[in-house]
Amino acid sequence: MRATVMYGAGDVRIENVPDAKIVEPTDALMTVTYASICGSDLWPYRGLAQFREGGNRMGHEAIGVVEAVGADVRHIKVGDLVAMPFAYSDGTCVHCQAGIHTSCIHGGFFGSPDVGGAQAEAIRIPQADGTLVVIPGGKDDALMASLLTLTDVMGTGHHAAVTARVTPGKTVAVVGDGAVGLCGVIAAHRLGAEQIILLGRHDDRIALAKQFGATDIVSERGAEAVGRVRELTGGYGVHSVLECVGNNLSMDTALNIARPGGAIGRVGVPHDVTIPAAAPTFYKNLTISGGPAPVRAYIEELLPEMLSGKIQPGLVFDRVVNLDQVPDGYRAMDERESIKVMIRA
Amino acid sequence: MRATVMYGAGDVRIENVPDAKIVEPTDALMTVTYASICGSDLWPYRGLAQFREGGNRMGHEAIGVVEAVGADVRHIKVGDLVAMPFAYSDGTCVHCQAGIHTSCIHGGFFGSPDVGGAQAEAIRIPQADGTLVVIPGGKDDALMASLLTLTDVMGTGHHAAVTARVTPGKTVAVVGDGAVGLCGVIAAHRLGAEQIILLGRHDDRIALAKQFGATDIVSERGAEAVGRVRELTGGYGVHSVLECVGNNLSMDTALNIARPGGAIGRVGVPHDVTIPAAAPTFYKNLTISGGPAPVRAYIEELLPEMLSGKIQPGLVFDRVVNLDQVPDGYRAMDERESIKVMIRA
Repeated sequence: MRATVMYGAGDVRIENVPDAKIVEPTDALMTVTYASICGSDLWPYRGLAQFREGGNRMGHEAIGVVEAVGADVRHIKVGDLVAMPFAYSDGTCVHCQAGIHTSCIHGGFFGSPDVGGAQAEAIRIPQADGTLVVIPGGKDDALMASLLTLTDVMGTGHHAAVTARVTPGKTVAVVGDGAVGLCGVIAAHRLGAEQIILLGRHDDRIALAKQFGATDIVSERGAEAVGRVRELTGGYGVHSVLECVGNNLSMDTALNIARPGGAIGRVGVPHDVTIPAAAPTFYKNLTISGGPAPVRAYIEELLPEMLSGKIQPGLVFDRVVNLDQVPDGYRAMDERESIKVMIRA
Repeated sequence: MRATVMYGAGDVRIENVPDAKIVEPTDALMTVTYASICGSDLWPYRGLAQFREGGNRMGHEAIGVVEAVGADVRHIKVGDLVAMPFAYSDGTCVHCQAGIHTSCIHGGFFGSPDVGGAQAEAIRIPQADGTLVVIPGGKDDALMASLLTLTDVMGTGHHAAVTARVTPGKTVAVVGDGAVGLCGVIAAHRLGAEQIILLGRHDDRIALAKQFGATDIVSERGAEAVGRVRELTGGYGVHSVLECVGNNLSMDTALNIARPGGAIGRVGVPHDVTIPAAAPTFYKNLTISGGPAPVRAYIEELLPEMLSGKIQPGLVFDRVVNLDQVPDGYRAMDERESIKVMIRA
């Protein structure tokens, strides 16, 4: 089968690899119908990752059709249209039961050598019963785009909002105008935030953020951004910060725009980030939370609003490619020509 | 009047200083009846602080009698028996209304040059209406000891438990067997924790912790302590960690004994602490919270249980001195001869 393999910075190839197949009795085999390129895929694309001998198999967000199931799979059936969260999980262990599926005792992450990546024709799904979510409906592209965000970016934006303790009436800032940040705006809006300040600087993303519910835009960076957010919040700062970038500047900004007692929900994988232990974190009684989003935990809550069209996170996809065009999809996202790229089989 | 002044490491003196007096119309003047020495007073005692010209005025936990009030004080009356939290606050600003009195816009901390310290015959209380809490009852020493802990250690232990998200049925670890850690055990117990593991190594404190509700004791340190806590929790770690020390070892231990999705409530003022941004904090979806405890916010909740005797945090006081004996009180706490020293006028 064909799959996306990354060999080094900027070196993405579509290659023939051994066919995905069932290995464990709890596995399913899924043909990929829709997949996507994630902002986190750009870290290795920019050289910020280890590359394995034989390259890294890419892709961890997908919708597909179940082609086969292992002997111990009880609930997922051949022919089901399913969404595949970026982490697989059994759904039954103590951490899954607590809603932290990304720490599942029998879990792991797609895009690893043993399970392969979803930017491919097919993929092996471990712990199929716990991992996969059957989705209703046909293959309407607009709806599928939103459902595809359940597998990562919408669930991740929601996790940022939940861990930043967004509740009705709160003032919120979203640091980062990537697909996750934009989904964070949707999440903050649906959780009832009164003011949603997006920190971003790209016109197309700003327009989408406003459509999603952002009330204010701050395009400055660093200390100037902090000053602007304070101006917009009566000098106090915000209750909740969704940190959707993961670098040191974004974290520093997040800590400095939070008001005393405020919370930072961080979902950007940290790269060379320093969290100061004393000021402002401790002295302002800030809460720092977040991590790899347990998107599996959120699907039941978010799915109905996508099916009804109440939320439309699929709008973050502004380009569609086929598998052969995936390398150009990486280039387009890296050069910010595209917010997020969908791969359609 | 006489007051406690610290000039350098180990150099505590009782000296004559200018009488405390009303400066602002929102001030009260309080004669100190009961005060105490705080674990945080030991940081400067061990040289870990800046010393001002003329020395540092010490003490920030006290109960006393109101001697005079400024023209704008409305609710506090001359003759009231009052408790003085370690931070003063107006009780009305946006941060006080949010329960973060330690970030009050018109607030500050006792033991500073302009307001003086409470290890003294009297003290000026800024923002008297917001700061002081009138306490009922006479001068029964045992009850007064508990009420005195409202001004810092019991409120601080409670803050650790609240920010560590202790709720009924949770497994909890308390790092540190000082007075705050012991009050943290009380707080976790009254909030319904099912298992309370105290990390401590002093027999007298361990005995008190068990009396307060600790179910397990771990006296190892570092990696061995982490292993023991994991053994005691089915290999998972705890839901909530009360970090009541504030050094790098205690923070590292706290992060490593928390289970995925767990929370650390830290109340020990951080000294040379590093918080790792990625593992284990981010990848385990840990929440790091806490800071200077807004003890004023908690007094109404805790006071009735002290008056009824349901909780007895005053048992952390195992030595009583008068003002002249304060230097020896510091020595006794520094040498761990005493858990916590009360100063009785």
